[in-house]
Amino acid sequence: MTDTKDQSKAQKKAEKQTKQAKQTTVPVVGGKKTDDIIGITVKKSENFSQWYQEVVLKAELIEYYTEISGFFIMRPATMYIWNTIRKWFQERIEAMGVEETSFPMFLSQKSLEKEKAHVEGFAPELAWVTKAGEKDLDVPVAVRPTSEAVMYPYYAKWIRSHRDLPFRLNQWNSVVRWEAKQTTPFLRAREFLWQEGHTAHLTEEQAAKEVLEILELYAGIYEQLLAVPVVRGRKTEAEKFAGGYYTTTVEGYIPSNGRGIQGATSHCLGQNFSKMFDITVEDPNEKGKHLYVWQNSWGLSTRVIGVMVMIHGDDKGLVLPPRIAKIQSILIPVGLTAKMTAEEKEAHLKKLDEILDILKKAGVRAESDLRDGYTPAWKFNDWELKGVPLRIEFGPKDAAKDVVSYARRDTGEKGTIPIAELTTKVPEMLETIQQDMYNRAEKAFREHRLQITNWDEVVPALDAKNLVIIPHCLVPECEEQIKEMTKGRSDESPDTPEGQKAPSMGMKSLCIPFEQPEGIVKGETKCLNPQCSRFAEAWCMFGRSY
Amino acid sequence: MTDTKDQSKAQKKAEKQTKQAKQTTVPVVGGKKTDDIIGITVKKSENFSQWYQEVVLKAELIEYYTEISGFFIMRPATMYIWNTIRKWFQERIEAMGVEETSFPMFLSQKSLEKEKAHVEGFAPELAWVTKAGEKDLDVPVAVRPTSEAVMYPYYAKWIRSHRDLPFRLNQWNSVVRWEAKQTTPFLRAREFLWQEGHTAHLTEEQAAKEVLEILELYAGIYEQLLAVPVVRGRKTEAEKFAGGYYTTTVEGYIPSNGRGIQGATSHCLGQNFSKMFDITVEDPNEKGKHLYVWQNSWGLSTRVIGVMVMIHGDDKGLVLPPRIAKIQSILIPVGLTAKMTAEEKEAHLKKLDEILDILKKAGVRAESDLRDGYTPAWKFNDWELKGVPLRIEFGPKDAAKDVVSYARRDTGEKGTIPIAELTTKVPEMLETIQQDMYNRAEKAFREHRLQITNWDEVVPALDAKNLVIIPHCLVPECEEQIKEMTKGRSDESPDTPEGQKAPSMGMKSLCIPFEQPEGIVKGETKCLNPQCSRFAEAWCMFGRSY
Ligand SMILES: [Zn+2]
Ligand SMILES: [Zn+2]
Repeated sequence: MTDTKDQSKAQKKAEKQTKQAKQTTVPVVGGKKTDDIIGITVKKSENFSQWYQEVVLKAELIEYYTEISGFFIMRPATMYIWNTIRKWFQERIEAMGVEETSFPMFLSQKSLEKEKAHVEGFAPELAWVTKAGEKDLDVPVAVRPTSEAVMYPYYAKWIRSHRDLPFRLNQWNSVVRWEAKQTTPFLRAREFLWQEGHTAHLTEEQAAKEVLEILELYAGIYEQLLAVPVVRGRKTEAEKFAGGYYTTTVEGYIPSNGRGIQGATSHCLGQNFSKMFDITVEDPNEKGKHLYVWQNSWGLSTRVIGVMVMIHGDDKGLVLPPRIAKIQSILIPVGLTAKMTAEEKEAHLKKLDEILDILKKAGVRAESDLRDGYTPAWKFNDWELKGVPLRIEFGPKDAAKDVVSYARRDTGEKGTIPIAELTTKVPEMLETIQQDMYNRAEKAFREHRLQITNWDEVVPALDAKNLVIIPHCLVPECEEQIKEMTKGRSDESPDTPEGQKAPSMGMKSLCIPFEQPEGIVKGETKCLNPQCSRFAEAWCMFGRSY
Repeated sequence: MTDTKDQSKAQKKAEKQTKQAKQTTVPVVGGKKTDDIIGITVKKSENFSQWYQEVVLKAELIEYYTEISGFFIMRPATMYIWNTIRKWFQERIEAMGVEETSFPMFLSQKSLEKEKAHVEGFAPELAWVTKAGEKDLDVPVAVRPTSEAVMYPYYAKWIRSHRDLPFRLNQWNSVVRWEAKQTTPFLRAREFLWQEGHTAHLTEEQAAKEVLEILELYAGIYEQLLAVPVVRGRKTEAEKFAGGYYTTTVEGYIPSNGRGIQGATSHCLGQNFSKMFDITVEDPNEKGKHLYVWQNSWGLSTRVIGVMVMIHGDDKGLVLPPRIAKIQSILIPVGLTAKMTAEEKEAHLKKLDEILDILKKAGVRAESDLRDGYTPAWKFNDWELKGVPLRIEFGPKDAAKDVVSYARRDTGEKGTIPIAELTTKVPEMLETIQQDMYNRAEKAFREHRLQITNWDEVVPALDAKNLVIIPHCLVPECEEQIKEMTKGRSDESPDTPEGQKAPSMGMKSLCIPFEQPEGIVKGETKCLNPQCSRFAEAWCMFGRSY
């Protein structure tokens, strides 16, 4: 079918390119291939940005997609975490009555034009398909950045009566937002996996209730699965979803650089979209009168994994909370010396296999590392890099005492466990690790949320890696001013990601926390911005952020 | 943010378009909105194509995506089936050691060019992104039609040693093939959901073993879940995967039009791609010698659902095999007359609720239909349309006898079951329905696979809705000839889908069945094509096909 000469030429070219790709994708540090080094080459506290990039790469969560910039390959370690989250969330929304759907990935110019405020928010990042094969399309189509405009024309068709409400659909897919900004694995990518729920309700109250139920599930994913604390709150007008009514959010915090990070958002769209897309039902209380439905949309993406890595990882690499770790405990034979006979070794490994069995039967996701040609120390480093929560070592000395030795990944704590107690102690220890990881992160976040009532303390607080909670008027112009006023200090710390160096970023509003401190008197307390003459409406959390 | 006047204008335009969409997406038959009619308006035997389109639409499997032609919305009823298949398959490949991954949806021109024969197969159907926001991309990127060219550059990086083999990844996603041909829900769409597995092995033998293991799982999805019989076999050179070594397939049969349909394919790619992408390991038996790995790829798509609908559906609508039915049994109160008191009705409904509980506890996916304002007859039709395998009716007469009445969706068979026996009889009956559905379809397929050794019988056999199994030389040119020779008979039957009418399609090779009949003597038996002078290599199954 193809010309042989051409094919051979193409083959050579391809081979050359592949070799180049192989070489360029191995980061070289100080002349030595870092690929040959076990572990991370920089300290988290010294170069946070490079540390993060090395961790996600070397722990095999991510591969950089060198073919097209801004895209990342999700490897099995990532997919395990994502699938655990998916299952947890899916069970809970199913119980709420949310059904699954799958809409096309493309949307037409026509449906995009229906909701102007919404489309303006996404237009600069839309990827446009203009050609199919060799032919130009009559009308270009865009890859969905989110599916409101894809789905809602059908809601108008499917929702015929108030008896169809609440109408709730969710889909798991990927969306494309062709970011111009610097991309970062998980946190900002041009394509990412997420779920997007889109629901319709008869009343504002019913919609509002669901918005918070979903937000609480998002908080649960962070807190219960990923051991990451979040602050629940509402976005200001300036930061809410384009075209929506109001946005609720869970906000996280990265201690290493003191940045806030949006965790996941649950939006009430109000009747804005239902009016644009003509989604109505007859009023159950008044025949002939039509009501526009109240709509919500809510989404959680693979970003959650990046937040977890940044918070829990350390200089040795990834640290996984046990509940989302594919391997919770790795069992490694140690102390097998050259002096031992083949029979002795075999007997020892048989015992180790029995221990593995005991752990598995106790519901622990355990594996053993019997790889030849690697020292125990090398294996320790390898599994630490990959974040396995609990290492169990088993050597002849342990065998003599009917115990195993363990090392916790999160604290490095070491000790022994009697083999007879494995089935209770190991699950307990995993649960303790999970709790301790959460508690440490919660403490760090709590201590770096400063409630401030003196403007002069704001920038020093930010520079000391805090978020601030201040009295604020909630007016967009004031937020814009605050962003400008807090910019421009030198930010020479090496852990600032590329493209965000000097001048330091201004702070933006993260959320109006639901848990409001005392102290604001309406019509009396002033907005903290000294250039703003308005009264404060609420305590608002601000910070430098992703 | 937006000009109010503009917005109001845009709003009016949008409303008008939405109203038009609402009207145009309701098929109108004979001046009456078919949407108001319960059930399907044409007979399966009289207009198979329209029958199919009505069933998938009215049973709420699919919605036509009117914004962009060739795309379809998968509704919850579809997603339930797809997720059931996904779970079944995922469990089994996980047990084989296949891990999950997620690669970007775009591929670059560069990686496309590496495998010429492969890319030639897909080039005419590639959707090209050329713009992001307002800016033209420096290098256009294509939406993946399949991921060989996306993934294999990374296999070259990740596979470093024969100890990494077998190396197996699978991903669940959607792919885009911008078909120029007429699209059909599930069977041929410009975007579809599927899984694609991509594996690498040390030897041809190991690769070959996996190819068949996966093919057997595909057959299991058809036979065990969807109650659809398939023939396992190998594709001829002319029909194999572009760029691959050989392709195995499961082939189905649609009795209504006598067409064959490719069910799912498991490919051995040989070393073709590993040579192009330089995927090598050191020979474990010879230091310094490098071997190209043996690769497989295999995929199964939402097409399976369309095959199931076509085979099992009837004039009343969808018929679902119990194992993939979200609702296996629907419980409907009957005989509630105006003469009954409120208390009597309440007592009856309470009993019905207890029956529902019994069924659920017995592991039956049961629901009750207590909707007001609909007659039992209307409800019967509605659930028949949606394919629920077993209807259970419960009226005062049943209550008096401590029984329920039932009606099987597949056969219409009716009878009663003592309430005391529900927990055993209903699961048994569902299993019987599953088996009976398979057996009927298996018989139909078996009776329409004609082994033919006389060329003159071929076209009449096709016209009588058969597939044929003939001695064949397996040479592509001969297949091409056969396709031409069997074309051109008038094909006026109204069940031929639009765009495929007159002249009737020629037959193509579907597979070389693994189960070969006796009777071919190598070097003696001639190829059945009278214009071909070659000897027959094997019995080959031919047919008109999708
Ligand atoms: Zn202010
Ligand atoms: Zn021939």
